[in-house]
Amino acid sequence: MRKPNIVILGAGYGGLMTTIQLQKSLSEKHANITLVNMHHYHYQSTWLHEAAAGTINHNNVRIMIQNVINSKRVNFIVDKVVSIDPEGKKVKLRETQIEYDILVIGLGFEEAAVRIPGLAEHAFMIKNLDSSMLIREHLEYNFALYNNEMEKNQSRLNIVVGGGEFTSVEFLGELANRIPQLCEDYDISKARVRIINIESEKTILSGLDQQLIDYAMNSLESRGIEIVTGASLKECKPGSVIYEKNGKKVEIPTMTTVWAAGGRANSVVETSGFETNQGKIEVRDDMRTPDYDDVFVVGDCALMKDVKTRKPFSGHAQIIIQQSEIVARNIKKLVNGKTELDKLKPNRFDTVVSLGYNDAIGTIMHNCKLYGWKATVMKKLLDNRYLMKIGGLGLVLKKGKFNVFY
Amino acid sequence: MRKPNIVILGAGYGGLMTTIQLQKSLSEKHANITLVNMHHYHYQSTWLHEAAAGTINHNNVRIMIQNVINSKRVNFIVDKVVSIDPEGKKVKLRETQIEYDILVIGLGFEEAAVRIPGLAEHAFMIKNLDSSMLIREHLEYNFALYNNEMEKNQSRLNIVVGGGEFTSVEFLGELANRIPQLCEDYDISKARVRIINIESEKTILSGLDQQLIDYAMNSLESRGIEIVTGASLKECKPGSVIYEKNGKKVEIPTMTTVWAAGGRANSVVETSGFETNQGKIEVRDDMRTPDYDDVFVVGDCALMKDVKTRKPFSGHAQIIIQQSEIVARNIKKLVNGKTELDKLKPNRFDTVVSLGYNDAIGTIMHNCKLYGWKATVMKKLLDNRYLMKIGGLGLVLKKGKFNVFY
Repeated sequence: MRKPNIVILGAGYGGLMTTIQLQKSLSEKHANITLVNMHHYHYQSTWLHEAAAGTINHNNVRIMIQNVINSKRVNFIVDKVVSIDPEGKKVKLRETQIEYDILVIGLGFEEAAVRIPGLAEHAFMIKNLDSSMLIREHLEYNFALYNNEMEKNQSRLNIVVGGGEFTSVEFLGELANRIPQLCEDYDISKARVRIINIESEKTILSGLDQQLIDYAMNSLESRGIEIVTGASLKECKPGSVIYEKNGKKVEIPTMTTVWAAGGRANSVVETSGFETNQGKIEVRDDMRTPDYDDVFVVGDCALMKDVKTRKPFSGHAQIIIQQSEIVARNIKKLVNGKTELDKLKPNRFDTVVSLGYNDAIGTIMHNCKLYGWKATVMKKLLDNRYLMKIGGLGLVLKKGKFNVFY
Repeated sequence: MRKPNIVILGAGYGGLMTTIQLQKSLSEKHANITLVNMHHYHYQSTWLHEAAAGTINHNNVRIMIQNVINSKRVNFIVDKVVSIDPEGKKVKLRETQIEYDILVIGLGFEEAAVRIPGLAEHAFMIKNLDSSMLIREHLEYNFALYNNEMEKNQSRLNIVVGGGEFTSVEFLGELANRIPQLCEDYDISKARVRIINIESEKTILSGLDQQLIDYAMNSLESRGIEIVTGASLKECKPGSVIYEKNGKKVEIPTMTTVWAAGGRANSVVETSGFETNQGKIEVRDDMRTPDYDDVFVVGDCALMKDVKTRKPFSGHAQIIIQQSEIVARNIKKLVNGKTELDKLKPNRFDTVVSLGYNDAIGTIMHNCKLYGWKATVMKKLLDNRYLMKIGGLGLVLKKGKFNVFY
């Protein structure tokens, strides 16, 4: 029997975790493992808002892939996926083409097209590490320019953040910590800086418990962030944004509009002909596509519905880690000729939203609410738990978060 | 007898050193001391090129003035000097006006008007801490933009440095260290970045010993810096510069032109009616102006000529430290009613040009040449010696340079 080729597309949370578990559980004589990723590094997409605000160094957000995979065991290709041919069992990359027997799609999310005029041209997106580092540099550059220009331009100090979901709120929390530092660096009075959040829903963090929302609102507003709810962005221009609230239009002069709401699954999935729901593949309980027994999906490209409520799960890092454990187990079963695969039963679903380095909110064990430093500790533990799984204690010590008490 | 008011304008090397020595040598019952400075911090102007390249944190370049002066003894005013009236013994500040009995002018240098078209509008200058931090941010922002833009724009990676004098060469040395780091951060191949130095003289560091020049050229070129000598900048445009060499014009696409050559003494000196030579006041041996017995000048506003050669001294930090010692001693004499003042005899004149964090050239004790790490150690010792004089051992430990062996 020929050794099967296992190909994993994408080294995000799902793809990388799957690879690391496969390199442990499958010996060289049983299967070849190939990992394809656009960059030579993996980045922690749940930390991007910190890189964007500049509160964490980007090198702590990324992990060199060769440091966490066994390069004798895994064939690592740095290339971009162009399309997948599930009938021919081939993947077209920009530079080459590869064949697979078992495929794992972990291609993550990309920026969703937004219908707001000017947004694609003039707003900044927290979508990947490069775009996040650009936001950090853009912020610093505008503070430096403000400091050097004779004629003061307020739009350099107004920061507008669109959307009030997880990433936006976490980014706002980091900005609240970062801006006072920037003000000190560039001799700018804190009172001159405005950070404005524009959210179309009636509340930020819509869907979370009201007590937690109140806590988050209070934490952000007490640090000077203006939250405008029930307001929709109408237009983004090079030097301003326009929003509408209660039928009234307001224009804010700003060089910096950050759009953190609305990613979508990688469009390669859709353009390759897979049947999709909101751009995602609605996977079976064993994480395979409905139509192909040799194609698994993990992470943001997979749509999973709760067995009871039939509501889709969000692309939550903890869920993705559980998914990749199931995928790796099931691939081992397939390689060993078994047909009955394991099913994913998400057994724990903690939500923690960071509000800066020393504040957070969250729920753990389904219903227990957390605030303040206790939630912060939980958030850091979750982050470290992930690093532990990827690279063991060494990586936790190198990239982990330990400043839990200040 | 009324207590004399001693007013020191500017907290650069000269003004700050004079203040610190006066607060030690003159007791409260003998004189009032007032220090005026534009910022609440002092910065080390000989470290600006490092802040501009981003190889040193700007907070290590500046020292909060209240941390090194005795605020019970010295009245510190943060304000900008508008003009001096030496007949009326008054200084006009932007917010107020002050009277003096003894004045010290230590107003430093400002950017010299340059006749190259477009330079003032489109080039960056290493003239103060703000302008240096802007260069750092501008460089990083262009690397971040290059990384994010689909269509690659080479002008973001071409860096042109005008002039081949001390500051330019030291800045080039820092860039040679910094650029590989930026390339790694933004996933840009080092081979794509060009750093080009344009010097109108036949050589860089014109005036230094030829062996030292050769060493510096070799050090910079071996790290990929292109040095074009005998070439004059003709025009600076938003996206390029044009230079002429051997009658041929060359255009380099670049977003970043840094002009480090040619500062001039603060123009307040000239506009206040002092007699000047190249914008500076040609001081007597006791550091007073030729016309006023109660006005001293230190630093870049003072023109001193060598007793033997009659050549002017350059505004060299070590010379300035010696000047301020004489000024402080002479002020004490004036306060004590003495008329015979001390004369400055510069007794040591070390020159060390840094070529990055681990290379340098220099001469010490007039004629002994130094290269490589020995010169680096010397440079760091000189820097630390200055910090020691300003703020004692505590400041050396906080802001000093100790990485002498790597």
